[in-house]
Amino acid sequence: MKPIIWSKYKLELLDQRLLPVTIEYVKCSNYKDVADAIKSMVVRGAPAIGIAAAFGVVLGALEFIDEDKIEFEKKMQSVFESLASTRPTAVNLFWAISKMKDTLFDCLNLNKDEIIASLEKKAIEILDEDLMLNKKIGEFGASLLPEKCSVLTHCNAGALATAGWGTALGVIRSAKEMGKDIKVFADETRPLLQGARLTAFELMQDGIDVTLISDNMAGYVMKLGLIDAVIVGADRIAANGDTANKIGTYSLSVLAKEHKVPFYIAAPYSTFDLQIKSGDEIPIEERNHDEVRKLFNIEIAPKDVKVFNPSFDVTPNENITAIITDKGVIKPPFIENIKIMR
Amino acid sequence: MKPIIWSKYKLELLDQRLLPVTIEYVKCSNYKDVADAIKSMVVRGAPAIGIAAAFGVVLGALEFIDEDKIEFEKKMQSVFESLASTRPTAVNLFWAISKMKDTLFDCLNLNKDEIIASLEKKAIEILDEDLMLNKKIGEFGASLLPEKCSVLTHCNAGALATAGWGTALGVIRSAKEMGKDIKVFADETRPLLQGARLTAFELMQDGIDVTLISDNMAGYVMKLGLIDAVIVGADRIAANGDTANKIGTYSLSVLAKEHKVPFYIAAPYSTFDLQIKSGDEIPIEERNHDEVRKLFNIEIAPKDVKVFNPSFDVTPNENITAIITDKGVIKPPFIENIKIMR
Repeated sequence: MKPIIWSKYKLELLDQRLLPVTIEYVKCSNYKDVADAIKSMVVRGAPAIGIAAAFGVVLGALEFIDEDKIEFEKKMQSVFESLASTRPTAVNLFWAISKMKDTLFDCLNLNKDEIIASLEKKAIEILDEDLMLNKKIGEFGASLLPEKCSVLTHCNAGALATAGWGTALGVIRSAKEMGKDIKVFADETRPLLQGARLTAFELMQDGIDVTLISDNMAGYVMKLGLIDAVIVGADRIAANGDTANKIGTYSLSVLAKEHKVPFYIAAPYSTFDLQIKSGDEIPIEERNHDEVRKLFNIEIAPKDVKVFNPSFDVTPNENITAIITDKGVIKPPFIENIKIMR
Repeated sequence: MKPIIWSKYKLELLDQRLLPVTIEYVKCSNYKDVADAIKSMVVRGAPAIGIAAAFGVVLGALEFIDEDKIEFEKKMQSVFESLASTRPTAVNLFWAISKMKDTLFDCLNLNKDEIIASLEKKAIEILDEDLMLNKKIGEFGASLLPEKCSVLTHCNAGALATAGWGTALGVIRSAKEMGKDIKVFADETRPLLQGARLTAFELMQDGIDVTLISDNMAGYVMKLGLIDAVIVGADRIAANGDTANKIGTYSLSVLAKEHKVPFYIAAPYSTFDLQIKSGDEIPIEERNHDEVRKLFNIEIAPKDVKVFNPSFDVTPNENITAIITDKGVIKPPFIENIKIMR
């Protein structure tokens, strides 16, 4: 089941808000549809929103290519801005938009068909490259895991969050492919339940042993000795290794440290933001309070209760055992080793 | 809003599964109704289930008082067993049943009306005493809190979990009564959302400033410096201070330690189980897996996904700053100080 399908100048996005109960694709025929789909989390996962945005740029170009050149460039500027303003935390979005901007800049003097073809080619390249990067992350990560191993993961850093295979779940898939005996515990990941709805779903589809727990059980399952490693994805990694990821990741890193369980981040190079020195500079999105107050439109709390709903948190580098990237495994000291690896 | 109403030999229990959307009482006219209500969590919270069970004993006696004496005693034995087998972790249940058993034993030679009257009197005493104990816990606990303070709590150790006032929330109510400036962060507490549905609800009703978060946000709010103290209730406290409470409490205790936030347990003397040396001996209830797979009967995960659903965990004494009881505040070393206080 592919999260992102590009065909005949239309983008189809698997509606991840409805999984696993309903399998339905949202058709995006212009860049605004794509921006809305990213904002409303039809598509989610740092690599996947980058890919979707890249195709959003192609749709924007298709919409405005017949305008005169000055107007086209102005309109494309607002396409880039609109796509970039959808979500603030995952850096892959800005990375993909920047790649598309560079591509457009390089082909501005070509004819209309060539411009569209160049942009489309680049977007497909970003999609294809992501799958390839995931496989590399998978191989590097799997080699870290013992032959028999139980892994805790949070949110969904899987096939559904990427072009396929996944980052954190890619490591698990690769380990299984190597013949390792892998069990997974999946945090349900409130408020949007990506663990319950997406991670449990895609691992079951692949026949990987998965047990669902609610987020507050993670400490207890570690205390029971049921977890050999924690592996999660990332939305942005600072130059010092501090990592923004789905809310709850930071708590897991503290619990892993307490229980001497290795704590791994799995992410492609596009997740690194070397412009920022530490996690303090990563903007943390706060989402609609009804995500916490309601579930599938059912009230689960007093209607007007105050809510705090940060969508991400930052795990400091000292809580991270290693960062698994497509170029290899980065261990502390992170500042030096991230520099070398990149 | 009272969670437990005893009137004219009927027990009415506020259905806590439906709050805050629906306010409805379940009428229990015999002991089996009470056992079912405890098992299905119509009534929940360690002190409240003890009180409900005490009235269950009165209803059982009413049902069988006209049998001959031998038969009555046999039937009452099964009433006690039935009520005791409803839930395994909270010790207040067994404490209340044992009080009722002692009372029955003492009045077996009285006439029927006197037996019923004695049992009813004892059950009402347990109810009234709980409210009084809560107020004492509240006073002792409130004195620990600074004048301006933000408290994180988990699950519902409030008026709804007790005869009224509450244990953890009793401390917050007492602090407010003393004029302290108290803010509360409430974990929603999956899977049954007692924090979102009950704690947020009862604090809002009392005009106490409450902010709802999902369980996995607790670490991040502590990291942001938003929490001055964690206060939770307890289902059973061992002789060494190890404390069983709602699943997720253990994780909170680790997070509190990491952030140097004081971690308090608030509970009446009936929560102590001095028969057991440590938390290892506390049985942990595992509940129906659909509690995690579904929410209000809506599927939120693959139908047949494996689940682990422990309802409680044990917080080791070394993670606890102090235990706030009706007899005073117990600080480490817990083994010695619990002995002295009791």
